[in-house]
Amino acid sequence: MSGGLLPEGFHDRLPPMAGAASRLERAVLDVAHGHGYEQVDPPLAEFEDSFAARLKSGSARDAVRFVDPVSQRTLAIRPDMTAQIGRIAATRMGHHPRPVRLSYAGPVLKLRATELKPERAQRQIGVELIGLDSVAAAREVVTLAVEALRAAGVEDGIAIDFTLPDLIDIMAADTLTAADFAALRDRLDAKDAAGVAAIDASYLPLIAAAGPFEPAMAKLRAISGDALASRLDGLAAIAEGLGGDVAVTLDPTERHGFEYQRWFGFSLFLSGGRGPIGRGGAYTILRGDCSEEPAVGFSLYADAILALGVGQDERRRLFLPIGTDPARAAELRAAGWVTVQALDGDDTPEAQLCTHALRSGEPAAVNR
Amino acid sequence: MSGGLLPEGFHDRLPPMAGAASRLERAVLDVAHGHGYEQVDPPLAEFEDSFAARLKSGSARDAVRFVDPVSQRTLAIRPDMTAQIGRIAATRMGHHPRPVRLSYAGPVLKLRATELKPERAQRQIGVELIGLDSVAAAREVVTLAVEALRAAGVEDGIAIDFTLPDLIDIMAADTLTAADFAALRDRLDAKDAAGVAAIDASYLPLIAAAGPFEPAMAKLRAISGDALASRLDGLAAIAEGLGGDVAVTLDPTERHGFEYQRWFGFSLFLSGGRGPIGRGGAYTILRGDCSEEPAVGFSLYADAILALGVGQDERRRLFLPIGTDPARAAELRAAGWVTVQALDGDDTPEAQLCTHALRSGEPAAVNR
Repeated sequence: MSGGLLPEGFHDRLPPMAGAASRLERAVLDVAHGHGYEQVDPPLAEFEDSFAARLKSGSARDAVRFVDPVSQRTLAIRPDMTAQIGRIAATRMGHHPRPVRLSYAGPVLKLRATELKPERAQRQIGVELIGLDSVAAAREVVTLAVEALRAAGVEDGIAIDFTLPDLIDIMAADTLTAADFAALRDRLDAKDAAGVAAIDASYLPLIAAAGPFEPAMAKLRAISGDALASRLDGLAAIAEGLGGDVAVTLDPTERHGFEYQRWFGFSLFLSGGRGPIGRGGAYTILRGDCSEEPAVGFSLYADAILALGVGQDERRRLFLPIGTDPARAAELRAAGWVTVQALDGDDTPEAQLCTHALRSGEPAAVNR
Repeated sequence: MSGGLLPEGFHDRLPPMAGAASRLERAVLDVAHGHGYEQVDPPLAEFEDSFAARLKSGSARDAVRFVDPVSQRTLAIRPDMTAQIGRIAATRMGHHPRPVRLSYAGPVLKLRATELKPERAQRQIGVELIGLDSVAAAREVVTLAVEALRAAGVEDGIAIDFTLPDLIDIMAADTLTAADFAALRDRLDAKDAAGVAAIDASYLPLIAAAGPFEPAMAKLRAISGDALASRLDGLAAIAEGLGGDVAVTLDPTERHGFEYQRWFGFSLFLSGGRGPIGRGGAYTILRGDCSEEPAVGFSLYADAILALGVGQDERRRLFLPIGTDPARAAELRAAGWVTVQALDGDDTPEAQLCTHALRSGEPAAVNR
């Protein structure tokens, strides 16, 4: 599309897509605002070492870096905003009573893309609830994600896939040797039943305990024992809050994309989409004293959502001929019209992509 | 404020300031949308040489640069968005009939700050009308700037200072030697009456032709002759569209900040502010064939506007005790409340900065 004008992985959002992106962002932030989440807006760049401490290791390497002529230190452009929100919650807002509810939206930049995610300049939108990772906190955040998608214009086809990122740690860390433990994780990641059976067949049912939520939970309860019971109860309570028209699945050993999530994680999907349109879960942020503080949150991938046609408005534009009274034009805008004023005699409704034109003082449809 | 957490010239926007910034941006984009301006969203980074060709020379040097591992070419983070809008209008939207009306909002980054503008990470909001720089186009854009400020919550105290950036070129380029011409510009920039008189006393009245619009225009008409008459008529027509409650001044030889403006430029001020809160005027963009195309537009400086307290909402937050019915909570949000759900029994309205709490099913003010 961009004909070599822009580097690979960068693109312009043009009308009407940029407007749709803006509406999506507003819908999410507005829903979060209604639930008490207040917006924060960290800067595009920070000291690299501040990022490095707070980003999962892979992301810090992905950042664009440059030397600051003022401080002579290395700065990085943010490859992700979650780390910045964590920094704000831990430092500038460290004295606020917990939980702190924050929302954010803005562009992020990656130096390198992956084959699966070729975009290097993207917009990130998200909410974070900091200070708690209880079932009640998780339920609030997951419900909010669904409510935000609905507010953005998604009517149906929302699906959530839950995972338990530290399931294996809890089930197997005390019973297997380190080598077998690492091998088990690896084989479970690959969904390799024979490989899992070769290490310890008792973990084999974990592969089967994936799919639609209720049956998968039943299988998991049957095999996982008491250590995980409270956590499965929690997951059930989260899913229960979602209402019947969200498709819920469970993939208990899925860890890809959840490298820094803790007791639960989730991916959001829309029907027709190829990959997730958002992701969230429980994680921890670093406090000022380097201790860890629990948090729950999610990020939405604006580009993936927009690619599915969400939030695209019908364009209704009213052409105003030369000499239209500005007061009448203001009236029409107040009534919801987008007005396009002709600035010279040659201008036409067609040239201005107008669906309507003012004739004898009233909007009339333009035949096209 | 940031206690060494962030590099000099970078800052976090926290609640409630980030929310106010978001509301300001929405107000401006919404007003522009009502007048047919459609949003575009260019990426944070582009090929450096693409920027260099389209930015006024100073700005390209201000950009953060890095080598793209994919293309092996130098990319730059945008120090300004106007050049990107010009690129989009000239290339991707080059086939659209003119005028093309575009709006944009986003962060920009400068490697170096100036003493007057110490911020290096700022938000830019603006509109551009591309393809025309007629009086009608200029009037639309200037009126839009004022309407946008009002929509953002500015009730009074808006002032506009007009300038005629190429006035001296038109008056003196054919009559003075190159050396005297350069000296004259320099002395006029310094508002140095004695210096101007020493070059050619006939330009001395230009210094006096500054101040409140009507008397300044009268003085300018008396001295400038026919060459400028149509342009002064145009400026008068632009100012006329503004209504009586905008303070209008003229500083005809002001060129600082208008290095790339052509026949007219303007600075926006709010009472109580130290510097301009926005700037605009007529300029040209480079077409794909390197010819020039006229344009008119303005940018608003979000930080300067927010510093004056514009758009700050009263915070009204309603605390919901544990066990509040989610359906009742949704009702309250639909009625305009921000609800903050208690997630454990220790949570209090005070800790959550709530002004109200739900008691016996109804919001009641919290005494503080």
